[in-house]
Amino acid sequence: MDLEFLHELNTQARTKIVMLILDGLGGLPAEAGGRTELETARTPNLDALAERSALGLSEPVGPGITVESGPGHLALFGYDPLQYRIGRGVLEAVGIGFDLQSEDIAVRGNYCRVDEAGVVTDRRAGRIPDAISREISKQLNTRIEDVTFFVETVREHRLAIILRGAGLSPEVSNTDPAKNGHKPLPLQALAPQAEKTARLLNQFLERSSQVIRNHIPEPPANMLLLRGFDRYPHFPLFPDIYGLRAAAIAVHPTYRGIAKLVGMQVLPVEGATAADEFSSLEKHWEGFDFFYLHIKNTDLAGEDGDFARKVAVIEEVDGLIPRLLALHPDVVIIGGDHSTPALLKGHSWHPVPTLIFSPDVRADGIHEFGERACGRGSLGTLPARNIMPIALANAGRLMKWSG
Amino acid sequence: MDLEFLHELNTQARTKIVMLILDGLGGLPAEAGGRTELETARTPNLDALAERSALGLSEPVGPGITVESGPGHLALFGYDPLQYRIGRGVLEAVGIGFDLQSEDIAVRGNYCRVDEAGVVTDRRAGRIPDAISREISKQLNTRIEDVTFFVETVREHRLAIILRGAGLSPEVSNTDPAKNGHKPLPLQALAPQAEKTARLLNQFLERSSQVIRNHIPEPPANMLLLRGFDRYPHFPLFPDIYGLRAAAIAVHPTYRGIAKLVGMQVLPVEGATAADEFSSLEKHWEGFDFFYLHIKNTDLAGEDGDFARKVAVIEEVDGLIPRLLALHPDVVIIGGDHSTPALLKGHSWHPVPTLIFSPDVRADGIHEFGERACGRGSLGTLPARNIMPIALANAGRLMKWSG
Repeated sequence: MDLEFLHELNTQARTKIVMLILDGLGGLPAEAGGRTELETARTPNLDALAERSALGLSEPVGPGITVESGPGHLALFGYDPLQYRIGRGVLEAVGIGFDLQSEDIAVRGNYCRVDEAGVVTDRRAGRIPDAISREISKQLNTRIEDVTFFVETVREHRLAIILRGAGLSPEVSNTDPAKNGHKPLPLQALAPQAEKTARLLNQFLERSSQVIRNHIPEPPANMLLLRGFDRYPHFPLFPDIYGLRAAAIAVHPTYRGIAKLVGMQVLPVEGATAADEFSSLEKHWEGFDFFYLHIKNTDLAGEDGDFARKVAVIEEVDGLIPRLLALHPDVVIIGGDHSTPALLKGHSWHPVPTLIFSPDVRADGIHEFGERACGRGSLGTLPARNIMPIALANAGRLMKWSG
Repeated sequence: MDLEFLHELNTQARTKIVMLILDGLGGLPAEAGGRTELETARTPNLDALAERSALGLSEPVGPGITVESGPGHLALFGYDPLQYRIGRGVLEAVGIGFDLQSEDIAVRGNYCRVDEAGVVTDRRAGRIPDAISREISKQLNTRIEDVTFFVETVREHRLAIILRGAGLSPEVSNTDPAKNGHKPLPLQALAPQAEKTARLLNQFLERSSQVIRNHIPEPPANMLLLRGFDRYPHFPLFPDIYGLRAAAIAVHPTYRGIAKLVGMQVLPVEGATAADEFSSLEKHWEGFDFFYLHIKNTDLAGEDGDFARKVAVIEEVDGLIPRLLALHPDVVIIGGDHSTPALLKGHSWHPVPTLIFSPDVRADGIHEFGERACGRGSLGTLPARNIMPIALANAGRLMKWSG
């Protein structure tokens, strides 16, 4: 639905909604005819909740389209990702709490390795340890002409690089070839007003390579890849659209970033486990109407091709469901921002198992939370951005529309 | 999805996609509570493939909308048929290999019979034999003022009529009443610039009736019906949009025409049976990434109201599936451009059974290819133009989208 239309129908209620997102939840059987990760996992609590819920399969952007986390989450929050776009660099910068200013240009950087011929052999530089990554980043901070370059390690090989200065433009091309086995792409201005930006970025890349070569002993990375140049976007804010005091509980910076960007309050988490996140939920239960709770490890296990670990993460989360239900939420959404089948070791286009529970939901009575069970559910295959309106309705937060 | 968006995400892969279209595949039970044509047919090969596939029901244009072949096929090829329109005459002209020029006006003609009161008693003139149809057409070729009229038999009663000359316009009304038992509609200009066209067409229709009456002994047809005036459209081409070397295997001119119009290479078929079409597929397997293979006889049997014959055609195609699978295609789509239930003796709005197979598809595990089985599938009821993006994703031909 159109966000303005939903805003118009908004009505207040004393109800609470929890959106529990298992990143990359959807999967595939390890072998034909077998069970997916979610179907394999022993999930008595999710299965019992599924029986009292409406089930379906959600598509973040459209049929066949594989998404990154940014558009995947925007869709879950009810925004059309084709209309509302966030540059990847902005997402990373906001995620680490960098105070991005209106004219800054942010870009996502990756430490990588290239061979002697200049071909990228590892786009993630072996997921280098945070401490080493931070040490390198510190040395790459610099100033060229009137432009300051902030280089911030997000996690492992992942960087947010921010350019601050006059006359900059985000209209420059990416250098990340997106796959190993290719050379980095040349960084070029895509519009006349971006020529200064391109020129300084090329100097920055050249200088960065030298600094790494000359100052880092046995560098695990020897190159920077850049993608997703953009400025801070100004979207309609989630709390305003839906009339919800909204909180985000997430450990990974990207997800804290996107939540902040749509105006959610990002809550502190003591520790980094799923149980720690649930503790934060319990602690802040009284203060908010909507909680987005993000579990990252399902996606990481999927990306690593580790079927068994993904199963284990799902079972870990299943074990926490009683703590969630003990809070008596009025509406519970359980789903994912995209699929990450261990079989494919990456994000995929497959629609994502989704459950919506409330006392007023028309339950499908299917005693299983899994891909095929959700494929039989009454929500059918639904655009992910339909989830919020259905949840709001179940929460008694949308008025009757008289035309 | 938007074609430009899909084009943007396009990435190359060494994968092959086969789209097998059984024209008018969807059906209805001959009696309430019974089985449809597809459900009645013994289809062990399709059923086995269905079990390893994702199933759904496709809608060419929208709920309740019955389509002709043109929009039905455009949707299968991923085009929005409400946005991309092909005049019926253009479709026929291109289908028979007529060299349509940019300013030509093409219209679909039917030989028909009218009674003494001028009421159409048979819109298809008993599907008159090709040889007789061609003989009549030859005599109808003419020139009026500066406009040349090309009259070309497509097959049986079906004609492509092309007007070539200065100052013509396709904005004239159809004369085909679309049903028997009605008089032909008057041919009128729908815009001032079409008045010359309407005037000459009315002279042409008058002359054609006289020629048929005066020069054909015992004419099986005594009138011409016209519908679908248009010029040659210029659509984005299928091979460019999707980055696929695309081939079409079809015996009937209309389908060869539409494939050519979207830029597919139309392959020769030695013979006219389904088996002959599969031989062409085998012969040209190495040269292309995408094959559209069209089976016409399901639709013809449906139009004739011949339930048993439609069942037999489906069983004939089922017997050829092993030859298709022996080629090891990466993605197989099996579906139809619309339903043609024998019960209704014509095209219908009912959604069309659809199967998408690939090693990476999330199979529904339903061991049956039929209307109700597909209704339980995870693809749900889907717009036909979603089929291509899903097939491309399964073929590894769409990049991840980062927003």
